[in-house]
Amino acid sequence: MTPTPATACVLIIGNEILSGKTQDTNLQFLGLELAKLGIRLEEARVVRDEPDAIIKHVNECRAKHSYVFTTGGIGPTHDDITAECVARAFGVELVLDPVAVELLKRGGRPLNEARLKMARVPRGAALIENAVSNAPGFRIENVFVLAGIPAIARAMFAAAAPLLVAGAQIHSASVDVFLREGDFAESLERIAIQHPEVDIGSYPFQRDGRFGASLVVRGTDRPLIEVIVQEIVSAMTALGGETALKP
Amino acid sequence: MTPTPATACVLIIGNEILSGKTQDTNLQFLGLELAKLGIRLEEARVVRDEPDAIIKHVNECRAKHSYVFTTGGIGPTHDDITAECVARAFGVELVLDPVAVELLKRGGRPLNEARLKMARVPRGAALIENAVSNAPGFRIENVFVLAGIPAIARAMFAAAAPLLVAGAQIHSASVDVFLREGDFAESLERIAIQHPEVDIGSYPFQRDGRFGASLVVRGTDRPLIEVIVQEIVSAMTALGGETALKP
Repeated sequence: MTPTPATACVLIIGNEILSGKTQDTNLQFLGLELAKLGIRLEEARVVRDEPDAIIKHVNECRAKHSYVFTTGGIGPTHDDITAECVARAFGVELVLDPVAVELLKRGGRPLNEARLKMARVPRGAALIENAVSNAPGFRIENVFVLAGIPAIARAMFAAAAPLLVAGAQIHSASVDVFLREGDFAESLERIAIQHPEVDIGSYPFQRDGRFGASLVVRGTDRPLIEVIVQEIVSAMTALGGETALKP
Repeated sequence: MTPTPATACVLIIGNEILSGKTQDTNLQFLGLELAKLGIRLEEARVVRDEPDAIIKHVNECRAKHSYVFTTGGIGPTHDDITAECVARAFGVELVLDPVAVELLKRGGRPLNEARLKMARVPRGAALIENAVSNAPGFRIENVFVLAGIPAIARAMFAAAAPLLVAGAQIHSASVDVFLREGDFAESLERIAIQHPEVDIGSYPFQRDGRFGASLVVRGTDRPLIEVIVQEIVSAMTALGGETALKP
């Protein structure tokens, strides 16, 4: 019996993502990095800067997944409420972390109330290093609280990654086929049914006026993935479709 | 008493978004378009191509929001399971829609089982026009099922928009301030507390080596928004911060 793989959920916190002001890019980054660690990103949720919503989603997701990563809402302004909400989700107080205070002092700016807010973490939380600026992230149990700014989110994830229990790395290989999905779907489904141990996805495209699809095989057994890609190439060639393996 | 504004949830369906293979752009588009219609996008969820997860999230979200928009999973391949899952969420059968069959015939390609799958919709659903290709989306009650390919998702949303009950349009105005968030947070919070009828967000940036933040005011009363932006400019100027109004 294979052990249950670790799963993760990403909680993107911020009105700016839902209003369309800001294009999120942290989800794609976290999806790629978690796959490298063999941690299956099961779902993501985008929530507004509203305490009840944040608390509810933190509690639902931490009960359901091995790891939860939040992004956004840990700055000094009034709309940064993630730390407070995570504390409330865990039913603990928000406390001033003396190490975080020292880190913030390094910035050389006055430590006013707003900046001190960035040193307040839920009781029992451990800091996550921020190699880009001074304000740290934090972890409490299985919830990792990262910044929203992409460069800082990346640096914090890198600092937190060694704490994660990695599974078997998830590999992928893909081939582009210049056929319409409707013309190869039945053939591809037969291959997918024969290989339930991998995920096979079909992602249609139109390129220089030609229709086609990227067929992606994902799983933990790299040699098997290569074999399945070759099966797909043969099946597509039999249908008269040109194929192009991706590097 | 103002009526409760319409709310929406976006359900992004697809392993490719969670694996990091594909960068989603539909959420930002829908966020911007819904704001224009005065519909508040409350949350979004990204889920894998797995029936139980899709059914659960469809049912949770349709009970909670005025409108649910799903993207992805309505093509002809084996991993396209959105229509089937939405039918199961509503407890109705999936039936072949004769109008959809006629639309698919226009493509001039053989109507095999895979293509016919794109003409199957939950019983009681109404088709949503697809001005880009032939396979339609559909609506059942308050759930709008759109394609994942951005150009097609946009076309389907345009076709569905006249069905939505619009609220007061949500306007926004913003000003960039060249101060660090920690230096203006208390001042900005005072303004935010005085104006609970608008949302004020602060989004920090680093530009040509200078730190600053975009301060965004959002709400339905456009003249009031302009007044508040001027209050913010005055407050930031008093702190010695250069400001730049955005067009």
